[in-house]
Parts: sequence; C-alpha cells; structure tokens
Amino acid sequence: MNHNDQDKSRLRQDALSIFRSALAAVDPEEAVHRYLRVESDVLLVEGRRYDLKSYDRILVVGGGKAVAPMAKAVEEILGNRVAAGALVVKDGHGLPLKKIRVHEASHPVPDERGVAGTLEILKLLEGAGRRDLVICLMSGGGSALLIAPAEGISLPDKQATTRSLLACGATIHEINTIRKHLSRAKGGQLARAAHPAGVLSLILSDVVGDDLDVIGSGPTVPDRSSFQDTLGIFKRYDIWDRIPGPVRERVSQGVKGALPETPKPGDPAFDGCAQVLVGSCLRALTAAAQSAERLGYRSLILSSKVEGEAREVAKAFAAIAKEVLSSHHPLKPPACVLTGGETTVTLQGDGRGGRNQEFVLAGAMSLEGIDNVVLLAGGTDGTDGPTDAAGAVADGATIGKAKALGMDPHAFLKRSDSYHFFKPLDDLILTGPTRTNVMDVYMLLVGA
Amino acid sequence: MNHNDQDKSRLRQDALSIFRSALAAVDPEEAVHRYLRVESDVLLVEGRRYDLKSYDRILVVGGGKAVAPMAKAVEEILGNRVAAGALVVKDGHGLPLKKIRVHEASHPVPDERGVAGTLEILKLLEGAGRRDLVICLMSGGGSALLIAPAEGISLPDKQATTRSLLACGATIHEINTIRKHLSRAKGGQLARAAHPAGVLSLILSDVVGDDLDVIGSGPTVPDRSSFQDTLGIFKRYDIWDRIPGPVRERVSQGVKGALPETPKPGDPAFDGCAQVLVGSCLRALTAAAQSAERLGYRSLILSSKVEGEAREVAKAFAAIAKEVLSSHHPLKPPACVLTGGETTVTLQGDGRGGRNQEFVLAGAMSLEGIDNVVLLAGGTDGTDGPTDAAGAVADGATIGKAKALGMDPHAFLKRSDSYHFFKPLDDLILTGPTRTNVMDVYMLLVGA
Repeated sequence: MNHNDQDKSRLRQDALSIFRSALAAVDPEEAVHRYLRVESDVLLVEGRRYDLKSYDRILVVGGGKAVAPMAKAVEEILGNRVAAGALVVKDGHGLPLKKIRVHEASHPVPDERGVAGTLEILKLLEGAGRRDLVICLMSGGGSALLIAPAEGISLPDKQATTRSLLACGATIHEINTIRKHLSRAKGGQLARAAHPAGVLSLILSDVVGDDLDVIGSGPTVPDRSSFQDTLGIFKRYDIWDRIPGPVRERVSQGVKGALPETPKPGDPAFDGCAQVLVGSCLRALTAAAQSAERLGYRSLILSSKVEGEAREVAKAFAAIAKEVLSSHHPLKPPACVLTGGETTVTLQGDGRGGRNQEFVLAGAMSLEGIDNVVLLAGGTDGTDGPTDAAGAVADGATIGKAKALGMDPHAFLKRSDSYHFFKPLDDLILTGPTRTNVMDVYMLLVGA
Repeated sequence: MNHNDQDKSRLRQDALSIFRSALAAVDPEEAVHRYLRVESDVLLVEGRRYDLKSYDRILVVGGGKAVAPMAKAVEEILGNRVAAGALVVKDGHGLPLKKIRVHEASHPVPDERGVAGTLEILKLLEGAGRRDLVICLMSGGGSALLIAPAEGISLPDKQATTRSLLACGATIHEINTIRKHLSRAKGGQLARAAHPAGVLSLILSDVVGDDLDVIGSGPTVPDRSSFQDTLGIFKRYDIWDRIPGPVRERVSQGVKGALPETPKPGDPAFDGCAQVLVGSCLRALTAAAQSAERLGYRSLILSSKVEGEAREVAKAFAAIAKEVLSSHHPLKPPACVLTGGETTVTLQGDGRGGRNQEFVLAGAMSLEGIDNVVLLAGGTDGTDGPTDAAGAVADGATIGKAKALGMDPHAFLKRSDSYHFFKPLDDLILTGPTRTNVMDVYMLLVGA
C-alpha cells in the first residue's frame, strides 16, 4: 500500500465513521432519550413542560416501523407513570414492552391486523380525559400501519381507491387528501379522538421536508383538505364512476355536510397538542457534520430535502468535489459536504441495486481518476432497494479498479445494476436493518 | 402591489443585476483588459513579466467566437507594438482591427474559409523567431474554426471521420485524440509552429473543468495521446474499415513512426509558453458572488462544473433554497447560492426551450408556493437553445401565475416547451448575444 492508497483508505474510513455517527443520531430509542427527560415530576421536551402531578394517566400510542424502540425509551424515561398504550408496527419490528401492547401488521400493504391495532388505539383515546396525557409516536410506515377505514368503508374499498389514484398519476398530496377522508385516524382524527386529553407527538420523519401533515397522513395535526376536494380529485382524473360504491356514497354524504369533516386548523381538538420532531434527515446530517469536524474536516450541509433522479443528482454533487479541489469553493479541503433526502431511480434494465448504490456509481464515473475524494451514499434504514446493502462508497480509483476486473461501468449503470458493480469491489455498505428511517445521506469527503 | 410582491420584485431585480455582473466579468474585451497591462515597457500578465524591449514583433493569432473583441483589447493595450496577426472567428463575429486580419468562417460545421485562415496563422507563426512574442487568443468554437487538416487529408475526410466516431458513441476525449492527429494546428502544433518564439495564450473557457487540453483541442498545450491511441479507438469501435482511405493511410504511417507525433509534455516547443485563463465560469460566478455581497446577500459558490440532466439538477438545487429557509443551511438568509456549468436536456417532446429555461421550469415546480425565493438560470452567451432568450427567472408564485393563465407546468416540462411557458409570464431573460461564452450560471436568491 503506497502513501496515496493509505490516504484514500483513511478518507474511506472517515466516511464510514461519519455515516455511522449519522445513523446513531437518528436511532429511534436514542432520539427519544435525547429529547425527553423527567426532572422533579416535570416532563421536559424541547422547552415544553408537562407537570406530571397534574396527570392521572399517561397513554402511549403510535404507528410506524420505528415506534417500538421509541416506546421502549418512553417506558424507560417515564417508568410506571405509563398506564397503558398500543402501537402498530411492521411485522418483525416489535419489542417486548411493559404496559404498551404491540400489534404487528403488514407493511407496505395494510391488513386487518393493522385495522385491529388502530381500532384499539382509537378506543383507548376515546376514553381519555382532561387528566390524561397522550404520547403519540409516529415514524415512517405509519400511513399503512395506522389504518382504520371510516364507517361503511372496507379495507379492500380503500385499497382499490388508492390503486385507481396511483394508476391515473395522482400526486401523493392528492392521495393523502382522499385517505384522510376515508379514515377514522388520519388527518387530525387521532387528536380529535383523544380530546380533551393533550397529545404530545414525537415524530421520526421519513419524508422530504418533514411535513407533519404528510408523516403518517398527519393523525394529530389539522387537515386543510375537505370532502369537496376529494370529489374534485376523483372528477379531475375522471375515475368517479370507477371507484367502489361505498367510497362514492361516503364522499357524496360528506360533500352534503352529512358527515363530520376532518378537524381543521383552530379546531379545539388541537388544544394542548404539540409536535416534536425527534429525528429527521437534517438531524442525521447535523450529527454527520459534527463527526466530520471532530475528524478535522470543514463541513457544509447543503440540504436535507434533495429529490431527483439519482444518477443526475450524483453528477451535480460530484461537481462540487471537483470545485473543492480546484478552487476551494465552497470549502477549503479537508472538506465534508453533506446532503440528504430521497432520490429516485427510473429503472433502465433488469439489474439489481438501489438509489444510493446507483448514486455512488454515477458519481464515481464523474470522479474517475481524481485523487483525494470519497463519495458515499447510504439509506439510514440500512436497506437500499431490494438488496442487503445500505449504499456504497467510492473514490477516484473505483472506476479504474472495476475496469481492471473487466467491468464496464456504463453498462452497469445502464441496466441499473449498481449492486453487482460494487459487490466484487467490496464497496457496499452493509449495516443490516437499522430500525430507523430518515431517508438517505449523501457525503463527499475531500482530503487536504 | 402589496409588500410581499415588492419584496419578490426586489429579489428578482437583484437576481437579474447579479447575473449582469457575471456577464460583465466575462466580457471578452474586459477580460483581457483585466489581466493584461503594460508598465514602462513591461507587459504584465498574472505575475508574469514580458520585457517588451526584448521583442522585435508581437504577433496576435487565435480562433473562436470571442477572439475579435479579445484582439481589440490587445491592440488597445499594446498599440503599435502589435506587428501583425490573424484570427478565425464565426461569421458575423468579426470586428475591424488595426494590424490583425480577421477571417470569418463557418461554425459549428467548419469550411474552407476556416482552413484558409488557419493556414495563414500557421504561416505567420512559422516565420516567428526568438525575438517575436506570439499572443494566442482562444475561446469557445476554436476547435471548428482553427481547422487545418494534415497533409493528404481533406476537410471532407476529416468530417466523415468525426461523423463515424459520433455515430458509434465515441467520447469527446476520443474524438479529440483523432482530431489532433489529423490536424496541423491542434494538440500543441500551433506552439510547435511558433517555436522558438514564446507563446502567451489568453483563454476564455467554455468547457466544464476548463481543461486547456480540450479548449480548442489544445493548440498550444502538450498532447498526451498518440497515433497508436487513434488506431486503438478506430479498432475499438470497429470502424477502421469504414473511415476514408487517406485517414487510414495517415494513421498507419504515424503508427510506424514515419510521421511526426504531436508535441508531448517536455517538448522544447513549449519552452516559453504560458497559458492564462482570462475568463471562465468560475470567474463569472465569483463576480456574481461579489455583486450579491454588495447587495447585502451572503454568498456561496458550490461548483462551476455542474453537469447532468437540467430538470433533475434543478430539483436538487431548489432543495437548497428550502433548506436555507427552514434551517439556515448552508447559509443564513439573505443568501445567494451560485453554481455553474452546462446541463443537458434530453428532449422529450416537440416544444421549444433551452437547458436554462428548462432548469428554471423544473426548479420553479419544486419551489411552488414558497415565499422569498428566486431561481435564475442563464447562458453567458445570451442564447439558450434555439430561442432568443438567455434563460429564465422564477419565484414561488410563478407556477401559480401560470396555472391562473390555464397553463399546466407538467405538460410544458413534459414536452420540453419551457420557452412558451415563460414567455407569457414575462419571465424570460433577454440579453441578446453577449459575444462571450463561459457556459451557464445558476442562481438561488433567498430573502431575509
């Protein structure tokens, strides 16, 4: 190993270490511990104070892939003060808890077990009063797991409606508007069920922009959409006649005013409601930046909200490394440039890969032959596409090494086969499932 | 106009003013004036000193769309010391000069007028001696304008060869390797012709990365490629039997060593040669950043080397504005974030537009409804695609205004019709041809 190889190896080790720091910062259990603490019978959360002596019961509810470890942290912090609770988590994502019942259910396609768990949560909340505090835990997957079709609507009705909307190209915002109006829980209705109890929501965000209205379809935040909007969406896409009869019936009744609307901003249901984002992509990037600074790098966070086609965004990101090297913009090396979010991959072949691995492959092609640069992209959930890798790491020598093995990078990119590109190079990042998800982290390290 | 509209208008005015500052900094005439000056018979260029008393003649040569105004500046600075010269410029891009002959020729498809002009330049240089100083001006378009096929090769032979290479997907690097070995001027051969005269090259770069070997196919810089490489390229793409006979004959002779190679690094032809980049995308971005700071914005240059599909890069760029607003990363507002380079547009319909207008359309869709943000993209040559606009400017209200006019932004983007999207909104940037080209400038302004 010559001197240059050692440097590269150091850069790679640092990149992986910075990525691990990002993951640690958004570990669901750690995240709750970081934001919640009890001091002399007062629960302190981000400057808010809950006097525990004024509550008879603390109820813990929630839905999402990461809420079991979040609930474990709540039990550790509040101990016997937790009176009861119920969660819906994805199959295999449960944990043994003391007072909180954990329902495992199907994800991403919802099932009746999810419905049963959600109905238990609603029942628990409907029995809550002024002297109860509800702690509501939300994380990625909550929309499919916290599922309770409105009266008269079956789960298959709801699913058929969603499929019709997807098929005609409705936006996720439009689909959520419909979901909220076919549900008993979404669009602020969990908060309404809990009223007059106060609801403290602790949220681990897996959506670009951390929009509280979008995470889990916003069960504890006001909804701005209406039955009239849902009718407009069905008409706009010309599918009104094709959706299930019970859905048409419910929307018609809703438009007439014969059914209660979801609670709107200013609704008393939200008195005493508070939302705290305990984990987000920005939080992961901030931890990564701090870790990089400790290792001696100047750091810069560009955005936690990146979207776009992975291979194209990667090219633009790689261009920043070249500028760091040639003109010291935007940072003088040693430099760590961080972005995050969720890119997309338009599949172009029958290969195997994920958006992070494809990002690194395209970026490595832009950085071919350039010394002193490392590019990393990884999913914070530890899973990138249908592979066992979280992402990949590459440097300016990666493409040369692949070519020496007889691999054509363009061909691998062309058929979206990034997994099989990085596997023989030993450049995959394998973390195993992390049980958290705040989207992806993209990192450039430039050595001095 | 309410207060918010006034603010937006202020942001827009500032964005346009910052863009104008970027253009002014890379005006070819201004650029030469900024780098060249004479003090008591010494020519000063970027720390280099040329004692004018030790030269009998100054010769000025060059090729490219912007070299006439560059030569005008040289004549203004050096006055009667300029003894003679010749330039090849694109039709309509000439200027009356005192001692320097200006040849207009066809671009981008070369013609015999370009050959005649280039041969005049070579003849002038071959007569140059130790007491002559050659000033060589290069700008975008130089590859097609400075054109002199090697002995035995005709212009149609050379063009047929380039077409074959393009058709089989050869890279621009491979095409340039061939071009250099079929030319009398490219790949350092202009410097060899001028030897033993020193050559001072003043370069306005229109290529991503400002690679001196690529700008105008590097007539005054060492070439690392060989006849052997050219043969390898023809064989790799399996077109050896299809290229014109004279080209096959020349390459075969070259491989045998029967023809002189292009001059390599260390060749005495480059003694006394110097290259000065007088204009580049980074220079334009630096001027833009300074202008933004004067207007009260914090500024950040991310990269002057951005490549990738315009609409995807735009989404990632817009994500930075959202982060500035939500978390003050990477800068606290008021902020100006700058990048540059050259994106691509994969045409998706029969619309009219250019990469900058498409960039702004896609970016505006990401920024819909967000206050206090302006996005601008403009080509420094004043021409974006086959339109009369340099680019476009948009803010968070742009998409709403378009919808109010009955326009569907998705549909315009889908058929690459950005020009017709922005025209009725009066959001096109119309500068007219600027006679310079350092690629494109992309700008985000975020108000306080």
